[in-house]
Amino acid sequence: MSVDACVKSILSGDRNALSYAITLAESSKEEWREEAYRILSELSQEKTNREAARRITITGAPGAGKSTFIEHFGKFLTSRGHRLAVLAVDPSSQLSQGSIMGDKTRMEVLSTDPLAYIRPSSAGAMLGGVNQGTKEAVFLCEKAGFDWILIETVGVGQSESFSSLITDMTILLVQPGAGDDIQGIKRGIMEVTDLMVVNKADGGQKELAGTTARAYASSLQLFQSRVSGYKPGVLVASSLENTGFEAIYSEADRFFNHLISSHQLMSNRHKQETQWFDMMLKERLLEWFMKRSEMAEKIQSVRSRMQTGELSGFAAIEEAMQEFKNQNL
Amino acid sequence: MSVDACVKSILSGDRNALSYAITLAESSKEEWREEAYRILSELSQEKTNREAARRITITGAPGAGKSTFIEHFGKFLTSRGHRLAVLAVDPSSQLSQGSIMGDKTRMEVLSTDPLAYIRPSSAGAMLGGVNQGTKEAVFLCEKAGFDWILIETVGVGQSESFSSLITDMTILLVQPGAGDDIQGIKRGIMEVTDLMVVNKADGGQKELAGTTARAYASSLQLFQSRVSGYKPGVLVASSLENTGFEAIYSEADRFFNHLISSHQLMSNRHKQETQWFDMMLKERLLEWFMKRSEMAEKIQSVRSRMQTGELSGFAAIEEAMQEFKNQNL
Repeated sequence: MSVDACVKSILSGDRNALSYAITLAESSKEEWREEAYRILSELSQEKTNREAARRITITGAPGAGKSTFIEHFGKFLTSRGHRLAVLAVDPSSQLSQGSIMGDKTRMEVLSTDPLAYIRPSSAGAMLGGVNQGTKEAVFLCEKAGFDWILIETVGVGQSESFSSLITDMTILLVQPGAGDDIQGIKRGIMEVTDLMVVNKADGGQKELAGTTARAYASSLQLFQSRVSGYKPGVLVASSLENTGFEAIYSEADRFFNHLISSHQLMSNRHKQETQWFDMMLKERLLEWFMKRSEMAEKIQSVRSRMQTGELSGFAAIEEAMQEFKNQNL
Repeated sequence: MSVDACVKSILSGDRNALSYAITLAESSKEEWREEAYRILSELSQEKTNREAARRITITGAPGAGKSTFIEHFGKFLTSRGHRLAVLAVDPSSQLSQGSIMGDKTRMEVLSTDPLAYIRPSSAGAMLGGVNQGTKEAVFLCEKAGFDWILIETVGVGQSESFSSLITDMTILLVQPGAGDDIQGIKRGIMEVTDLMVVNKADGGQKELAGTTARAYASSLQLFQSRVSGYKPGVLVASSLENTGFEAIYSEADRFFNHLISSHQLMSNRHKQETQWFDMMLKERLLEWFMKRSEMAEKIQSVRSRMQTGELSGFAAIEEAMQEFKNQNL
């Protein structure tokens, strides 16, 4: 597919073209990624009349019920006419994270919904803590006309990176039952959480979910807000009983209205772009250099000698810098 | 001073040599930093029989009383025979952070203590969220025989970076009085806090300090420990009345003993070194390249066109990558 054809097809909502471009962006082949960036570059110059999509990270420890929540909350969104893209991490390609399920059993209902697009994200190379291609995929989905974009993370480790590089909002799912180690939440996740949802508030756990929510709400008060002028809320929900979705939807409204009216949405995205540019520049320069320069092998050998402990970190840096110096450019 | 002479002098505890090497490492001049790295590289190959120093970040919002705490806790440490290095951020060289004080009034008592070495850190170039030269300064102080190294951060923003790149332990100071916005603690700081100290527990604030400590202690329980197998504690202290220092000292003992016995101290440091190597490699490669290649100007122009909004981030990356491709190496 030519760049122009792909751009036009994506803008018209063609899912094959969308999937094709995401595949290029996720590729480990340099030429494919270059092709992806030609498409991204063209697309970013095309103006659409649509509002910005809601780019949201859904995070939480394993067992918090992220996939089930996305499936049911996703149906709630499409029932309201929203066009929803879900970038889900494929658990089968991750080591020791989540359970192994076939794609068929994952988001069974949502995956047949004509308003939903589900894309398992690759577990390939990482850049700044996010999977290569994920930022690009979010942008492509937005250009294809999806107005809600949910990214499901594996565990909570990546949430900070997604928050600082890719999405506008982070929703943290927790289980009922607060207390020592029960939640296993990395404390840093609080930094980037804009809304907490105590999930699985159903059956005998309803009351406990309420208690848990109150405990988190009082904890959250001790800390500064991530988004200037916005206090993160704590809500309860049940994917099983389809409860709490209205409130989450309103809260997301409140959040995005605040971001937009305080001019933070676009300024945050602009910051993310600049950060991404600087990161990519270094990464690609290094990649390009290591492929073409005869120095590459020497640097690799210095790095392995450091990893085995033969060289200290400082000594390794010193040797690597000497290699730069000896190179004629 | 020659590299060899400087290395020998630092190992023998000569403070002039130590200060000289730190100045080189903090410099914006490439040649000076290269000289610093020759010294660091040599030093890292010298084995000493000393135990690892305690590298500790002292953080907290402005007004938490960090400098005063370090001055008084520092005296407590030297009175026990410890050799203490303090890397203090010079507030006068920071914009809108902390109050402007002359160096003379800062840590007046500690600065005349023969067992203490106080070094205001530069507010120069940043690398991965830390001041260039700070990691190097910590290492140099350790080689010079200091067994406690305290880094005072400006505010709390940098704590995560210090924790992941430079120090073994992070102590967070807070004021008595927990509640909405009173503390102004970025939530992310909890991620890396190994000990919380409610400071200024003196006079009429003693009781409030106790309440504050209990509130934080129950909040901390909701989150995972940073260090495997270690529960961060919350203590109260007063620099005015010199209380609480014994308990902080024991708690630091407990922390470091745990790090050592669980083999995490050296493995953490090894991780920090690898991360530092990878960061420095990219940073120095970029710096070297931008100085010497004719491509540099083009990349700079692409970057400014992105910053003004003329180019999107993706389009800018695409153009920059094209520049790499067109370059003959």
